[in-house]
Amino acid sequence: SRYEYVKNFEQDLTTLPQTWIVIRVDGQAFTKFCETHHLEKPNDLRCLNTMNKAAQMTCLKFTDIVLAYGQSDEYSFVISPNSSFFNRRQQKIISTVVSYFTSCFVVNWPNDIPLQYPPTFDCRLVCYPSFEILHDYLRWRQADCHINNLYNTTFWALVKGGLTEREAHNTLKGTTSAVKNQILFERSINYNNEPEIYKKGTVIVKPYLEFLHEDIFHRNFFMTYNILV
Amino acid sequence: SRYEYVKNFEQDLTTLPQTWIVIRVDGQAFTKFCETHHLEKPNDLRCLNTMNKAAQMTCLKFTDIVLAYGQSDEYSFVISPNSSFFNRRQQKIISTVVSYFTSCFVVNWPNDIPLQYPPTFDCRLVCYPSFEILHDYLRWRQADCHINNLYNTTFWALVKGGLTEREAHNTLKGTTSAVKNQILFERSINYNNEPEIYKKGTVIVKPYLEFLHEDIFHRNFFMTYNILV
Amino acid sequence: SRYEYVKNFEQDLTTLPQTWIVIRVDGQAFTKFCETHHLEKPNDLRCLNTMNKAAQMTCLKFTDIVLAYGQSDEYSFVISPNSSFFNRRQQKIISTVVSYFTSCFVVNWPNDIPLQYPPTFDCRLVCYPSFEILHDYLRWRQADCHINNLYNTTFWALVKGGLTEREAHNTLKGTTSAVKNQILFERSINYNNEPEIYKKGTVIVKPYLEFLHEDIFHRNFFMTYNILV
Amino acid sequence: SRYEYVKNFEQDLTTLPQTWIVIRVDGQAFTKFCETHHLEKPNDLRCLNTMNKAAQMTCLKFTDIVLAYGQSDEYSFVISPNSSFFNRRQQKIISTVVSYFTSCFVVNWPNDIPLQYPPTFDCRLVCYPSFEILHDYLRWRQADCHINNLYNTTFWALVKGGLTEREAHNTLKGTTSAVKNQILFERSINYNNEPEIYKKGTVIVKPYLEFLHEDIFHRNFFMTYNILV
Ligand SMILES: Nc1nc2c(ncn2[C@H]2C[C@H](O)[C@@H](COP(=O)(O)OP(=O)(O)OP(=O)(O)O)O2)c(=O)[nH]1
Ligand SMILES: Nc1nc2c(ncn2[C@H]2C[C@H](O)[C@@H](COP(=O)(O)OP(=O)(O)OP(=O)(O)O)O2)c(=O)[nH]1
Ligand SMILES: Nc1nc2c(ncn2[C@H]2C[C@H](O)[C@@H](COP(=O)(O)OP(=O)(O)OP(=O)(O)O)O2)c(=O)[nH]1
Ligand SMILES: Nc1nc2c(ncn2[C@H]2C[C@H](O)[C@@H](COP(=O)(O)OP(=O)(O)OP(=O)(O)O)O2)c(=O)[nH]1
Ligand SMILES: O=P(O)(O)OP(=O)(O)OP(=O)(O)O
Ligand SMILES: O=P(O)(O)OP(=O)(O)OP(=O)(O)O
Ligand SMILES: O=P(O)(O)OP(=O)(O)OP(=O)(O)O
Ligand SMILES: O=P(O)(O)OP(=O)(O)OP(=O)(O)O
Ligand SMILES: [Mg+2]
Ligand SMILES: [Mg+2]
Ligand SMILES: [Mg+2]
Ligand SMILES: [Mg+2]
Ligand SMILES: [Mg+2]
Ligand SMILES: [Mg+2]
Ligand SMILES: [Mg+2]
Ligand SMILES: [Mg+2]
Ligand SMILES: [Mg+2]
Ligand SMILES: [Mg+2]
Ligand SMILES: [Mg+2]
Ligand SMILES: [Mg+2]
Repeated sequence: SRYEYVKNFEQDLTTLPQTWIVIRVDGQAFTKFCETHHLEKPNDLRCLNTMNKAAQMTCLKFTDIVLAYGQSDEYSFVISPNSSFFNRRQQKIISTVVSYFTSCFVVNWPNDIPLQYPPTFDCRLVCYPSFEILHDYLRWRQADCHINNLYNTTFWALVKGGLTEREAHNTLKGTTSAVKNQILFERSINYNNEPEIYKKGTVIVKPYLEFLHEDIFHRNFFMTYNILV
Repeated sequence: SRYEYVKNFEQDLTTLPQTWIVIRVDGQAFTKFCETHHLEKPNDLRCLNTMNKAAQMTCLKFTDIVLAYGQSDEYSFVISPNSSFFNRRQQKIISTVVSYFTSCFVVNWPNDIPLQYPPTFDCRLVCYPSFEILHDYLRWRQADCHINNLYNTTFWALVKGGLTEREAHNTLKGTTSAVKNQILFERSINYNNEPEIYKKGTVIVKPYLEFLHEDIFHRNFFMTYNILV
Repeated sequence: SRYEYVKNFEQDLTTLPQTWIVIRVDGQAFTKFCETHHLEKPNDLRCLNTMNKAAQMTCLKFTDIVLAYGQSDEYSFVISPNSSFFNRRQQKIISTVVSYFTSCFVVNWPNDIPLQYPPTFDCRLVCYPSFEILHDYLRWRQADCHINNLYNTTFWALVKGGLTEREAHNTLKGTTSAVKNQILFERSINYNNEPEIYKKGTVIVKPYLEFLHEDIFHRNFFMTYNILV
Repeated sequence: SRYEYVKNFEQDLTTLPQTWIVIRVDGQAFTKFCETHHLEKPNDLRCLNTMNKAAQMTCLKFTDIVLAYGQSDEYSFVISPNSSFFNRRQQKIISTVVSYFTSCFVVNWPNDIPLQYPPTFDCRLVCYPSFEILHDYLRWRQADCHINNLYNTTFWALVKGGLTEREAHNTLKGTTSAVKNQILFERSINYNNEPEIYKKGTVIVKPYLEFLHEDIFHRNFFMTYNILV
């Protein structure tokens, strides 16, 4: 038709071949979402389980995904360098993955927590030219999980112990990991005994698709699962 | 942390300022989705209503959207040229809009049609440098609605009249609109009397957010609703 | 050949259709280049003439260019929105234009100023979605010409009048245009009588290709030359 | 100033970090350029020397370049993955390199061949995520050199032997390397004895900057020069 020329304005970028593609979804304004739905602090297993289930289904649907790592309100999906998923078109990849993930999240949301409004995730695509850098990316997300979880666990322990949120915040300002561990210890909490899913996040590896709560800081991990390298 | 350098690999493109941004979502493999859920052919009002409701909520949540147009399994959202929605970052805009739209679609899906699997939408972002070209874009989508609906209406009328799908297909191959209207007329269907929502699709205009089933082929439309121009 | 797959890594972006394309070349480290070649301060007509000649030849070679504007060590070339110059491929456009401009600059460099080293220009491509914004772009470059020229003319007048460069700099810091005009006036220089080429820069318009030293701040200019609008 | 907002329309892309950057310049319409300047066929040493000299100067000026490879009317420059040359801004890199290369080419053009018009080069930037792929890129260009040179050498030998250009073309159509070598041999030309610069092209390696006419098909090359790997 005479209007079809408008299609020429589409400019879908193509991802550089032979690079690792990482797609990360992250809950939009989940601080508020978790408040509104009265989720447990700092970790609500029902929410984490929904994230994990949505990620697992996403890994199943998109066979180009070889690994996924999730923590808090985010999940990273890794696509191997030689994949031609959607011809490596960025907009197609980003939109389809985040849409399906969101759809699965809603569908798997627990019935006993009525949804107050539809949850949203943003999504980004990043290319990493080598396995080493991809590995550092995963370490970065897992370090983030550790740092936040140690902080939050200590923070809520202090609050449960009677401090206001402001006081807890001030107590923790600038403290090292050691100090936080000490504070927990004084409240009879051994951080090492906290659930692995909270401390390490969740890894999903093709083709098993189980949920692992292990260290991906060490190359060992990839050896064991005989992947990627 | 020492891993944070991996964030430098993010390359979120920015949309050219002062251009109309169009974001179009389109159901992924909805031919199969509609089959699986036994939707009515060629138009199932329950599905269209769910699309419209999701679009309306999307217009409400993202105040930078000034107009939306939907038909079949797709919806286009228009953002005005001077908007600084997410600083015009492409990945943020695409992912957040398609995620929320999908979320709303699932949440509003009719209870009496059990979802067999989570629906997915792809999404693209296109910039149009002038109102004239944006207008041609909208005409293009509405012409697409008209062409497909006339074809599909005639096709299913033939099938209901006893033809196989193959025969119906062959009968219609290469026929003009006039011939299709004639075929319908012979089966006592006056295409003009078909529901406007099927023939024209649906327009949603800020700030009213009603569903309009009107011609956006004519500049008049924009005058009446006092928008955009 | 088995190596040809490496061509798939090329990612030449395409410029958005129906936008004004501006290509600006700018002398790389021309502060030093002008020093080294002992050019007259603040304006050396031999250098400006070489710039103008190179720009004129560039307008002749690339017929998609409709207008050029130059001042100091820079030149902007304007390509009309409906042009399909090199299929609007960014890298092709940028590289070919800056290469030819540089080639012409060297070839036309005056014989009596021996080139101490090969001059270089950088180049950028920018899209403007409307004539109004393109117009503001041109006004921006011409305002830059005016501001710099008034400053430099006053600065060198002060230096010729016996001030050190540091003193001249301090004298002018934060002064308005009016004050600068006054300083010049006290040294018997009427800024209005300075050569137009220094005050206004140079415009080249298709198909005449003469050098104009006029105001492009006013829409009038475009009317007179019956262009663009 | 009030016009400065137009600078926000600039969208200089950044090259993905930690990838090899290849910048290739190629003579624009050099078939015609070589004809016009009556260069020797198929190889004119004066032209190749000018290319080599320009490339050498380019390697000297831009210290981020670690290797260059040239043949015919083209030169490829390699920048190492960890370089932050112009902050990896694509337009800056492309434009500055091609401008300086062109400038050097003109300045070094032999005095005894008067330039009929200013030569032009296009330029492209490509990223390669691994050394292996970069290596394949270089092999690709060198294989191109070999294939063209064998063809051209045989072609002009046939023409010197009395065939028209059309006849020579037809004779060679679809022939293997072996056949071409045979044809040359029958005309007392041993292709192996042809000058290395014609058969292999020219490699320039930091920091020596000599001209090498060697095989870069073998990893050995990189070992010997202790580079890149
Ligand atoms: N109570 C509770 N909160 C959680 C849980 N998982 C995540 N959150 C909260 C903690 C953080 O405030 C938030 C995740 O941090 P983000 O940096 O993603 O912030 P947020 O999503 O609010 O903003 P954003 O739109 O991503 O910029 O979600 C949970 O299991 N329970
Ligand atoms: N039965 C039925 N089908 C519908 C309805 N609305 C849309 N569809 C079907 C008709 C088309 O086969 C399909 C939309 O066309 P598309 O070109 O988007 O194809 P599809 O989504 O299958 O593939 P895609 O993933 O978008 O390339 O959805 C409806 O209300 N009822
Ligand atoms: N003496 C003299 N200097 C001139 C003339 N035309 C331009 N210039 C100098 C004045 C400025 O220092 C310089 C142009 O300013 P730029 O902002 O382009 O700086 P420059 O080229 O040094 O650095 P760049 O590589 O562009 O960032 O060139 C002239 O005719 N005579
Ligand atoms: N006679 C002669 N011709 C040469 C020499 N070096 C290169 N050439 C010619 C042979 C080819 O026709 C041409 C290089 O091939 P290209 O594919 O780059 O074609 P050309 O530059 O004409 O077109 P382009 O603008 O790059 O698409 O230059 C030389 O030393 N002597
Ligand atoms: O739907 P089109 O025709 O615009 O094409 P696309 O969505 O870019 O591609 P496809 O539908 O084939 O995935
Ligand atoms: O929307 P924001 O501020 O979260 O922006 P972002 O790019 O998502 O930032 P981050 O990577 O820190 O979440
Ligand atoms: O030279 P090619 O084959 O890589 O192709 P291009 O330079 O992208 O295009 P052209 O030479 O046709 O301008
Ligand atoms: O290289 P610079 O610093 O001049 O960077 P730029 O993008 O050219 O900046 P400007 O537009 O200010 O010349
Ligand atoms: Mg964020
Ligand atoms: Mg979040
Ligand atoms: Mg988060
Ligand atoms: Mg499609
Ligand atoms: Mg579809
Ligand atoms: Mg569709
Ligand atoms: Mg600059
Ligand atoms: Mg400069
Ligand atoms: Mg300048
Ligand atoms: Mg080419
Ligand atoms: Mg060439
Ligand atoms: Mg060539």
